[in-house]
Amino acid sequence: MTSDEITIHRGLTGVYFDRSETTFIDGKQGVLEYRGYNINDLAEHSTFEETGYLLIHGKLPTQAELDEFDAELKAARELPERIFDVIDMVKDSHPMDALRTAVSALASFDEDRNDNSAEATIRKGNRLTSQVPAIVMAHHNIRQGKDPIKPSSTLNHAGNFLYMLNGDEPSADAAELMDKDFVLHADHGSNASAFTARVVAGTAADIHGAVTAGIAALSGPSHGGAAENVMQMAKEIGKPENAADYVKNLLSNRERVMGFGHRVYKAEDPRAGHLRAGVKKLSEEMGQPEWYQILEAVVEAMQPYARRGIHVNVDFFAGVIYYLNGVPQDLFVPIFAVGRIPGWTIQVVEQFRHNILIRPLLQYTGGRELEYVPIAERE
Amino acid sequence: MTSDEITIHRGLTGVYFDRSETTFIDGKQGVLEYRGYNINDLAEHSTFEETGYLLIHGKLPTQAELDEFDAELKAARELPERIFDVIDMVKDSHPMDALRTAVSALASFDEDRNDNSAEATIRKGNRLTSQVPAIVMAHHNIRQGKDPIKPSSTLNHAGNFLYMLNGDEPSADAAELMDKDFVLHADHGSNASAFTARVVAGTAADIHGAVTAGIAALSGPSHGGAAENVMQMAKEIGKPENAADYVKNLLSNRERVMGFGHRVYKAEDPRAGHLRAGVKKLSEEMGQPEWYQILEAVVEAMQPYARRGIHVNVDFFAGVIYYLNGVPQDLFVPIFAVGRIPGWTIQVVEQFRHNILIRPLLQYTGGRELEYVPIAERE
Ligand SMILES: CC(C)(COP(=O)(O)OP(=O)(O)OC[C@H]1O[C@@H](n2cnc3c(N)ncnc32)[C@H](O)[C@@H]1OP(=O)(O)O)[C@@H](O)C(=O)NCCC(=O)NCCS
Ligand SMILES: CC(C)(COP(=O)(O)OP(=O)(O)OC[C@H]1O[C@@H](n2cnc3c(N)ncnc32)[C@H](O)[C@@H]1OP(=O)(O)O)[C@@H](O)C(=O)NCCC(=O)NCCS
Repeated sequence: MTSDEITIHRGLTGVYFDRSETTFIDGKQGVLEYRGYNINDLAEHSTFEETGYLLIHGKLPTQAELDEFDAELKAARELPERIFDVIDMVKDSHPMDALRTAVSALASFDEDRNDNSAEATIRKGNRLTSQVPAIVMAHHNIRQGKDPIKPSSTLNHAGNFLYMLNGDEPSADAAELMDKDFVLHADHGSNASAFTARVVAGTAADIHGAVTAGIAALSGPSHGGAAENVMQMAKEIGKPENAADYVKNLLSNRERVMGFGHRVYKAEDPRAGHLRAGVKKLSEEMGQPEWYQILEAVVEAMQPYARRGIHVNVDFFAGVIYYLNGVPQDLFVPIFAVGRIPGWTIQVVEQFRHNILIRPLLQYTGGRELEYVPIAERE
Repeated sequence: MTSDEITIHRGLTGVYFDRSETTFIDGKQGVLEYRGYNINDLAEHSTFEETGYLLIHGKLPTQAELDEFDAELKAARELPERIFDVIDMVKDSHPMDALRTAVSALASFDEDRNDNSAEATIRKGNRLTSQVPAIVMAHHNIRQGKDPIKPSSTLNHAGNFLYMLNGDEPSADAAELMDKDFVLHADHGSNASAFTARVVAGTAADIHGAVTAGIAALSGPSHGGAAENVMQMAKEIGKPENAADYVKNLLSNRERVMGFGHRVYKAEDPRAGHLRAGVKKLSEEMGQPEWYQILEAVVEAMQPYARRGIHVNVDFFAGVIYYLNGVPQDLFVPIFAVGRIPGWTIQVVEQFRHNILIRPLLQYTGGRELEYVPIAERE
């Protein structure tokens, strides 16, 4: 093949690498379905536990099935003792780096290690669904010199997550909004982190390796990192009147406005609306409506870009919700990870099902057939 | 787009996702060049240090440049104290899992953390080139209840690696063969682990995240895992006469013969020949020629597959070399990682250069627009 005949798919934009029965996305219409169920229905009526079951098992659970799944998740909330020591060793890391290290370490404590069957992978993935929030909060407490908070055995996933922050039981509203946030983040096709997990699973490595790698990918600012940056931006803007100038300034420097744009959505991200409503309600209730107003002013300033298909994405409103819940800024990306474990789990299982090595090509554009000159003769 | 119009590139076979100036591979002719230099020249005349410089800087070094690079590598051989504690926590892990955990933990001890410039990424990558072998051997000693062996400050990279195994200075021959092995493994285009590292770097995450993820991918049996399995197979075969039946049996069960086949090479892997010669020499010198004979008998038995483009790959002869050097079987994949750090480093730098999110698509094949039924009404 001559080099002219080679088509380069930079960023693999528009390239289908496999089939999947997990998540449907229509980027033009802004539609998202998990296992055929619209994200709007799930955000409104479902819970993270139910959505997790749906993703993993492909159907909505009966009450008995949900109870069993819930019990499985609750049973896995306590971390192996040594993981706290590992977390302590890396307590000065960014929380995503600490999470990546601790999940990697968990591999060796799992009773199903060395078993890559679908059943064992699902068991390990479900344990990770409970262990990941425990790690995030243990690290957060340990770095402040405090003891980790023992997980609740009664609160739901979202409530327990907020509870482990400082041992205060969250309000029903706060827990509900957190739950919705987890539902909205539970899967999203072959985004960069799920794709990373699948490439690792493609070599027949195990789910701990795949999820560790997924966490590494998620930490990047072009992916999960955005929620953290949006909050930073909102603080810098300070009040709604400043938003237009701030955005103009960013764009004229050819910088990106965080929380906008998406490889697949060219319409509004269907997840964003649910969080937008949440921010409005929460910021008003808490007497800090300016946060909502600042975000809306940014959206307003970005209006010209909407015509080019650049809309708010899931990360735009999420950050302020976390902030109002008292969650420190550097835990925003880990929260994304907490919600995403069911999605990574089922995608790893899908990858294993008819496994194939994922190994694309790079076009070589450098020099060829150079002569190896002995070192004394080089200049 | 209707689903009939979608082309699925399973395994991304044949898909070019970017350009690269690092490594040229011609899979049909069996040609491999790093930065334009033929692997045969490098295997014969170069060293791992020189090859590392070549990959990173794009040219063969002068003596002064090589000395400086070598000093940079030597200076990074000592691990931060806390990494030994992390290794101790996961001492019962597979060495690849321990390596993944320790590299992930190293992120928070690096003075250049939070700096993704090319210069800082190269500094971090070069440190990892020295830290990875130190981790592999520290873990190996710690799991045996021994103290890690302080790295040599005078031996070359390969010699120091073998030295850290048990504190014995290796023979010149053993160190030379190890050096050649590292040269042969230093880069290989967008194989699954380098590709994983690039997907992580594509989100603008850092090199520690990218290399951690690369290690996760490399551990899979379809990728780096093969060298370990080849040795296992050679032991099970036991003597050359058994090879033909053993292979026949594997193939008739539709199992794969480890160390054979490659996504890109449909001719003999040009790296294999160098290690083949090494195995022959070493096994004869050590009075154990049967190992070489067993491997050759396997190649003989696989002859019919050669016509279908299935040849020995780099992992086929490597394992026996490590075995004869007294390296335990579960360190074979980590050795691959030790050699590969320069390749991962430069590919991460390349990815950062004109960075783009790597985000392909999955074709959804499940049900659509299902009705959300309240839980009490489900069956
Ligand atoms: C998510 C993202 C990486 C997708 O990018 P992509 O599919 O690779 O698209 P590109 O980066 O090629 O962007 C296409 C065009 O839109 C512009 N664009 C994309 N996102 C933009 C943003 N957030 N602000 C301003 N301009 C943006 C690009 O500058 C580019 O313009 P150009 O054609 O004039 O150069 C990108 O939109 C982005 O960086 N967003 C900000 C980070 C973020 O919120 N990430 C979370 C995603 S859930
Ligand atoms: C490396 C590898 C994953 C590449 O695979 P790939 O490009 O995806 O090719 P496929 O797996 O589709 O194999 C193509 C055909 O060759 C056969 N084949 C490939 N490698 C084989 C092997 N090692 N032994 C026997 N048959 C093999 C496959 O069974 C398949 O046959 P089919 O078309 O009749 O089903 C594969 O060759 C393999 O598993 N090798 C053994 C592991 C190994 O040595 N890995 C180290 C690589 S450096």
